[in-house]
Amino acid sequence: MSEERFNELRGEQVVYAIHRQERTFLPTREHCPLCPTRAGGDATEIPREAFEIAVFENRFPAFEGPRGAAEVIVYTDEHEGSLATLPPERAEALMWVWRHRYSELGAREDVRYVMIFENRGVEVGVTLHHPHGQVYAFPFLPPVPERELQADARAGGCAVCALLAAELGDGRRVVYEDDGVVCFVPFAARWAFEVHVVVREHRASLLEFDAAELRSLAAALQALVRGYDALFARPFPYVMVVHQAPTGASGAAVGGHVHVEFYPPLRDADKLKYLAGSEQGAGTFIADTIPEESAAALREAIAHGA
Amino acid sequence: MSEERFNELRGEQVVYAIHRQERTFLPTREHCPLCPTRAGGDATEIPREAFEIAVFENRFPAFEGPRGAAEVIVYTDEHEGSLATLPPERAEALMWVWRHRYSELGAREDVRYVMIFENRGVEVGVTLHHPHGQVYAFPFLPPVPERELQADARAGGCAVCALLAAELGDGRRVVYEDDGVVCFVPFAARWAFEVHVVVREHRASLLEFDAAELRSLAAALQALVRGYDALFARPFPYVMVVHQAPTGASGAAVGGHVHVEFYPPLRDADKLKYLAGSEQGAGTFIADTIPEESAAALREAIAHGA
Repeated sequence: MSEERFNELRGEQVVYAIHRQERTFLPTREHCPLCPTRAGGDATEIPREAFEIAVFENRFPAFEGPRGAAEVIVYTDEHEGSLATLPPERAEALMWVWRHRYSELGAREDVRYVMIFENRGVEVGVTLHHPHGQVYAFPFLPPVPERELQADARAGGCAVCALLAAELGDGRRVVYEDDGVVCFVPFAARWAFEVHVVVREHRASLLEFDAAELRSLAAALQALVRGYDALFARPFPYVMVVHQAPTGASGAAVGGHVHVEFYPPLRDADKLKYLAGSEQGAGTFIADTIPEESAAALREAIAHGA
Repeated sequence: MSEERFNELRGEQVVYAIHRQERTFLPTREHCPLCPTRAGGDATEIPREAFEIAVFENRFPAFEGPRGAAEVIVYTDEHEGSLATLPPERAEALMWVWRHRYSELGAREDVRYVMIFENRGVEVGVTLHHPHGQVYAFPFLPPVPERELQADARAGGCAVCALLAAELGDGRRVVYEDDGVVCFVPFAARWAFEVHVVVREHRASLLEFDAAELRSLAAALQALVRGYDALFARPFPYVMVVHQAPTGASGAAVGGHVHVEFYPPLRDADKLKYLAGSEQGAGTFIADTIPEESAAALREAIAHGA
């Protein structure tokens, strides 16, 4: 159902998934397809009366076998809430689910890159409010991880390790840390409140995490999203992306260091950052804020939200 | 006032222009800073009672000397209207203004890339409705033109010439043409109604255009925007970017073929394409429509709008 075409001028694949145009758009709460199937109610995507975390194939997939996969991960059977409001043990269980999906999809012959992500808020085009994330198993290595591999080559080692050391050394942009992970607004953030959540030890994927690191990652993600929500006293829209090593043929000989990147479109309580002339036409982000100031505000909000 | 920082993981510069956060936001018509300064009214950016086309330095610049420049080009002293509704001779004069700004800014020692563009519509973050465009003179070569040079290297010649020949050979995605230029939805469009306006002859910049080609370009841009507006019977938001050869040290030995790219965020009359997980996290566009169908609809709308 999907078609890939190579865009020569940009040097990247574009994917056409035309059946997606008709996908479910902001259903009312009683018709939510991510809620459990309750006696007397609609049959939803999940044929259970209750569940903890549910994973299933996207009904409107950007990718499907034998060229990749697209899955939905529902965080809870409760319609309200967010990653931030899950009980800590559920958030921790979600990390194990992420690890499992990376392991299973990454082992497939047709998959080159497993990307776990969450879009939150109508500002980034969310069509279902029930707390959930997604997984895309790409049948090719996309541009962003390819650029991260180029960054490793320029760094002569792991670029993420080098950036983490620099951020810890500077300290002004760090917003949260514990024994396992560090969160910071990066030195050259593209978004006003962009944050990278980086595991301290060099780990190519979640498969290399120990249980304590998975717990640290869950706690950091929850603390960060609570801080985001506290920052402007409103649910904070974002795109969250888990970066891990490429898999399959393209991953065999290459690096990667687990980090979760958050791209929030808000640059102020009621102002959105739009991607317009410079971002789209030149590929250069123009920011209206500086990372040190954003980090100071966010650090305080995280402390407040704790 | 601006600061550039290199984003290691993306391999690109990010520009911090913090004074821009306070820029003028959707003023009422009587306080429009791009209208002429009328007797008894506000002093606007343009100290004249009437004008044809006005160019001035952006008061909230992303770039300024000695590291680049940011200019505003006002198309008309009439507050209402668009590129499409200008008299044809005014649109043609605008092409000469573009050529002049490319020539003057491109000759500067500190400028590596001159990008003329227009953001249209609140959907792409427009803060002033008066018909106008902008020029950014970048003090570095941004990622998008760099990728176009890589495309030339892969093509072993001009990639734009090769793509134009392929589109003319196929024909299904061509939406408008005359002796000087061709407009098409590209084979691997990222946006549902993306269009490239390409000059038939190989021209590195507008400086190489003859008068007839400038006239053709103006007419094509106007026909296209009229078609866009006719497509869904509403003003059609877009980002329009004029791609020309890099200048200065980076342009001396390199290629370029003038083409104007339109990136419209609408994928249907009332549906926006958002850049979310896949676009931001992987750099891969997922489209809901196929270029051949978009081209058929747009070709008809252009004929209707003529």
